[in-house]
Amino acid sequence: MRKTATIAALLACTATAPIAAKEGMFTPGQLPEIAEDLKETGLEIDPETLTDLTGFPMGAIVSLGGCSASFVSPEGLVVTNHHCARGSVQYNSTAENNYLENGFLAKAKGDELPAAPGSRIYVTTEITDVTARMRDGVDALSATERYDTLEQRMKDITAECEQDAGSRCQVASFYGGAEYTLIKRLEVRDVRLVYAPADSIGKYGGDIDNWMWPRHTGDFAFYRAYVAPDGSAADYSEDNVPYQPEHHLKVSAADLDDGDFVMAAGYPGSTQRYATLAEVENTFSWTYPTYVTLVNDWIDTIEEAAPEGSDARVKYESLLAGLNNFEKNTRGQLEGARRVGLVDRRRAREEELAAWIAADPSRANYGEAITGLQALNEAGAAAAKKAFWYNFATRPALLSAAQRLYRLSQERLKPDAQREPGYQDRDMTFFAQGLQALDRRYEASVDKAQWLLFLDTYLEEPAENRVAVFDDALGLAGDVDAAALSAKLDSYYAGTTLDDSETRLALMDASPADFEASEDPFIQLAVALYEYEREQEAEAEERAGRAQALRPAYMKAITQWQRSQGLSTYPDANSTLRVTYGTVMGGSPKDGMAYLPFTTLEGILEKDTGEDPFNAPAKQLQEIREKDYGPYALDSIGSVPVNFLSDLDSTGGNSGSATLNARAELVGLLFDGTFESVNSDWDFDPRTTRTIHVDTRYMLWVMDKVDGAEGLIEEMDIVE
Amino acid sequence: MRKTATIAALLACTATAPIAAKEGMFTPGQLPEIAEDLKETGLEIDPETLTDLTGFPMGAIVSLGGCSASFVSPEGLVVTNHHCARGSVQYNSTAENNYLENGFLAKAKGDELPAAPGSRIYVTTEITDVTARMRDGVDALSATERYDTLEQRMKDITAECEQDAGSRCQVASFYGGAEYTLIKRLEVRDVRLVYAPADSIGKYGGDIDNWMWPRHTGDFAFYRAYVAPDGSAADYSEDNVPYQPEHHLKVSAADLDDGDFVMAAGYPGSTQRYATLAEVENTFSWTYPTYVTLVNDWIDTIEEAAPEGSDARVKYESLLAGLNNFEKNTRGQLEGARRVGLVDRRRAREEELAAWIAADPSRANYGEAITGLQALNEAGAAAAKKAFWYNFATRPALLSAAQRLYRLSQERLKPDAQREPGYQDRDMTFFAQGLQALDRRYEASVDKAQWLLFLDTYLEEPAENRVAVFDDALGLAGDVDAAALSAKLDSYYAGTTLDDSETRLALMDASPADFEASEDPFIQLAVALYEYEREQEAEAEERAGRAQALRPAYMKAITQWQRSQGLSTYPDANSTLRVTYGTVMGGSPKDGMAYLPFTTLEGILEKDTGEDPFNAPAKQLQEIREKDYGPYALDSIGSVPVNFLSDLDSTGGNSGSATLNARAELVGLLFDGTFESVNSDWDFDPRTTRTIHVDTRYMLWVMDKVDGAEGLIEEMDIVE
Repeated sequence: MRKTATIAALLACTATAPIAAKEGMFTPGQLPEIAEDLKETGLEIDPETLTDLTGFPMGAIVSLGGCSASFVSPEGLVVTNHHCARGSVQYNSTAENNYLENGFLAKAKGDELPAAPGSRIYVTTEITDVTARMRDGVDALSATERYDTLEQRMKDITAECEQDAGSRCQVASFYGGAEYTLIKRLEVRDVRLVYAPADSIGKYGGDIDNWMWPRHTGDFAFYRAYVAPDGSAADYSEDNVPYQPEHHLKVSAADLDDGDFVMAAGYPGSTQRYATLAEVENTFSWTYPTYVTLVNDWIDTIEEAAPEGSDARVKYESLLAGLNNFEKNTRGQLEGARRVGLVDRRRAREEELAAWIAADPSRANYGEAITGLQALNEAGAAAAKKAFWYNFATRPALLSAAQRLYRLSQERLKPDAQREPGYQDRDMTFFAQGLQALDRRYEASVDKAQWLLFLDTYLEEPAENRVAVFDDALGLAGDVDAAALSAKLDSYYAGTTLDDSETRLALMDASPADFEASEDPFIQLAVALYEYEREQEAEAEERAGRAQALRPAYMKAITQWQRSQGLSTYPDANSTLRVTYGTVMGGSPKDGMAYLPFTTLEGILEKDTGEDPFNAPAKQLQEIREKDYGPYALDSIGSVPVNFLSDLDSTGGNSGSATLNARAELVGLLFDGTFESVNSDWDFDPRTTRTIHVDTRYMLWVMDKVDGAEGLIEEMDIVE
Repeated sequence: MRKTATIAALLACTATAPIAAKEGMFTPGQLPEIAEDLKETGLEIDPETLTDLTGFPMGAIVSLGGCSASFVSPEGLVVTNHHCARGSVQYNSTAENNYLENGFLAKAKGDELPAAPGSRIYVTTEITDVTARMRDGVDALSATERYDTLEQRMKDITAECEQDAGSRCQVASFYGGAEYTLIKRLEVRDVRLVYAPADSIGKYGGDIDNWMWPRHTGDFAFYRAYVAPDGSAADYSEDNVPYQPEHHLKVSAADLDDGDFVMAAGYPGSTQRYATLAEVENTFSWTYPTYVTLVNDWIDTIEEAAPEGSDARVKYESLLAGLNNFEKNTRGQLEGARRVGLVDRRRAREEELAAWIAADPSRANYGEAITGLQALNEAGAAAAKKAFWYNFATRPALLSAAQRLYRLSQERLKPDAQREPGYQDRDMTFFAQGLQALDRRYEASVDKAQWLLFLDTYLEEPAENRVAVFDDALGLAGDVDAAALSAKLDSYYAGTTLDDSETRLALMDASPADFEASEDPFIQLAVALYEYEREQEAEAEERAGRAQALRPAYMKAITQWQRSQGLSTYPDANSTLRVTYGTVMGGSPKDGMAYLPFTTLEGILEKDTGEDPFNAPAKQLQEIREKDYGPYALDSIGSVPVNFLSDLDSTGGNSGSATLNARAELVGLLFDGTFESVNSDWDFDPRTTRTIHVDTRYMLWVMDKVDGAEGLIEEMDIVE
């Protein structure tokens, strides 16, 4: 029996010939520098327009704090990733209305639901260079003075900026402190959930597919920004009205294909592209492997103490998901570092840089800075190793709460402007929310099981990594009897009242003396540890102050050296607005294998087992079987594209970023990187680094064919 | 920092656009039927030449019994897979000379080592159609008579054929018994090991990469066939001389690339492409899932009873490897069946076939045959379910040996020609070798642990699946006390002398009365079960006899129906010589992903962790780093190809098959299928079915650059 012609035709498939990826998370201000390459790569609009943060399209790009998002209608409709809005879906879910399971769609604006407490939409309104004001005279100061001065100036500049009601400001450091920028943002506090598909679409593939390609995740959801009728930021109120952004993105249902230009605008969290060899070695030979081992034990401990199906498990699901994600990511980074020979590459870079410095006596100061950084790295690594075990050993939730509260009582003795960041009046809303949220994430028995695990690892450490005051407080000096230790811990959980959120919130107004007189065991422990931790903090700040002098010089050396090779240097990610650009392209994760640039609806049928996380809604499966593509199919793949790959340079925090085509129309949302890409925080490998996007055609298809969200489609400007 | 041009160029990679695979394992006699397609696909030699089994190239193709191989020099040099010759490497290994770890290369012919006992090279010399003689008058017989008659004729024809000294003959059934062929083969009994690379090349990737792509396994090794000075087959002797085959293959080091014609000639074991819906449903809903569960428990039991590093483990390594391979394969088949919707496809085929039959009253007999087959399938499935648990419960190694020996004593009461196949004089060499080999695979404590597991599963079965005579013998009726059962089993192991190979071999001459008088508990159990098993066998033979009437009609219906659609039908695989052809091509194992057609030397660097099974020899890694490709690189991939994919149609037994190019030069050895292909035994899915080959350029590169096997390279005819 020979193959039939119809089968052959149906099964035809094409694979791309990926060339190499673009690297760079550029600040909007840098884009004119690289205007030529932007145009060559395919950008059709004027690159200059991208530098205007209040113009089109950047005026439509917003931050959710930790995630990125964008306006897609004149009535404040915001699109972001499902995983960025899922907390709000969960917050509104009940046994009767399980929106996680069924999805949520507001039929009208009045049905939109308040997002989870603390949800914010930040609209960047202004970026100002404050380098001169920040750095004036700091080079001449001692390390500790430098640290304190920079921190105080940062707070002062922020406070001035926030005089404008409704603004939230931030001073961001670039190039290791060589430059500083003040970012002013409108802080929308009334955020409402408009639409989120069911987990079985929005979280399709779950943890199994997390960081993986091929991918079929409908990772999108919609919020709406609300403000007071006068347009000012306001807390939730029925009287509030939809925010009217100056700009919003058009949504494309058209023709994006392999090789097409794409760019993403968003808020990448942090990268370590310029880490020194010593930092890389310490991270990949000690920190990451140590974390992987510990986190696996930690996951086992929680799973045992909070068995599947138990009430306790519900409280720890989110932590478990985070730990699994972290573990997979860290393992991926270790694999990636081995694969690309990261340490050797960094050693080579350092040697080349050293040779460039040695070639010209006027560059001697760079050499001194690098030597200084090396010594600092060593000191920092030793301190970090000691702190690592102690930090875990002092991780019980109520101890942490007691420590924050006691610190607050101390900080409140100072004028607001002089308090430690995190303890100023501007921080108190989030502070209180954090204390409150603890109830939903705490169960004494599970907390104790974790504490015992962390104490076990701490007790295995040699004397130099032990902390006397902590050992004394818990009776850990000498031989420790397991039963006695367990009983000791029981007495903490039995004797505390911090497990009551009212009690915790009330302590926000307590004085240091109140804490010092308390008989609560966790508070007593917090008080006992306070001085030791302040000493450690002072030492860390002293090291940071030294770094603030050395790192700018190191980055200047890097920048000069790269410029001498005709390359331009972008700053490491720091949660500020960045633009990355490139093209839709597949990749080769390993020898003998290729990732195709698009996945298709049919891939969902192929993956679907009916079991979570591969349990697409029956209606969706039916529509796919019927090939009811509507106007959303891409001819070259013969189906509706679900997710696509690009060579964009992204990292955590980029989630939800608007993916734009050459005309700055929305073609997708950035939501993940491939497993082979997680190492890109340290080293962008153009062969393997690929970013994963959900295609707007899939979003629209789901809204149209599965969830009946025609109202929202009508609200948006669709480009066909 | 932008990408550098050099990186971009280095990392360029291409992916194929696979279209669809060829299906078909054709008998050499069928090839003229499809000569046109062979030529269109790229065959440059005359297709007719492939039907001449003693001509070129088929005269160079041989069987090892279970594996395929081919002659590659005029002096009897045979190339096959490393995994086909590994038993011989192991057989010759000692603590001092660990050839598994270090590889083995005979410096001269005198250094070649005897292959493991029982190793054979079968050279097919003649194929004769014996359908008329086999089938004459059998349609008129009762089922049991038909079975007995066919078996007797098969033995008679075989015996006649083996009158020729040194010949080993076989009557093979095609199309479910519609056709019979006598295959006459020269049986080379002096087989010697010439060269095998180290496990770290020949088994690179081990169980982890088994059935996987991308692949980097150097799965090749060399034997040499020896015969008596007069050219006749002979047992091992120093006086023997290398066999001089009439034909041998040239070995290509040239230009095979993506899209090129390839074909493989070998001995595929068995396929079920024409299985009925009922057979498919029973297999995929019951048999395979039941096996997967049981085999996982079985593996756990062995691993616990024979811990890693123990002496016992050595004896069970081979069984464990087999079980792991089987488990992965079966799981892959279940996944594949779900992915392609196997049951639905078979239902559709059956409905279409039924419609074709219904369309013409003259086809009514086909319909009756199919109805009869359905009833037979149901009866067979019920018997198989009952036999499944009983067969495992009676699996102890010494019980099996006792059963075979007692059976032999019974069969020997009959004239040789009337004995059951497997118990004739021609079988006695293998019979004795099997009894002897038991010592290397048996440890009482592990055997007992397995037996307990199997008895536990057997005891969970309802009454209708239990066997009274077995229950009585072991005291399993009523409630069974675990400790008592364990003690009972202990008494078997303590009371037996069958663990001694001399004892077992001596029993080959014992009479039934000797067994019946024996006090050995395993022999007593074997005697007790004998009658029950003969009854079961008679019932099975009666069903087989019915199938021998029905299945030829069913296959005739299939053949006629397919012919009506312009398709030609090839017979299911049955360990006879077959040819499959197609092209070098990558594939798409799933939506969004592609397999590239070649892997490269650099992929070994990428995979290598230094830990088994990813621990390539240091010398090899060094040669790769130095890009010392010699004349073996393929320009289009910029490296030496290691393994490649094709759309050839293969299955177990094809291992070691010569992969030939359009001019019938050796370009590789077939050694595996991808994980998505394992289901192809039931259903050839042209999108996902791909066969994996080791490239001759990699073989030559390893011989040249790593193992210093220049002498062998010189012995072969290399095409550059």
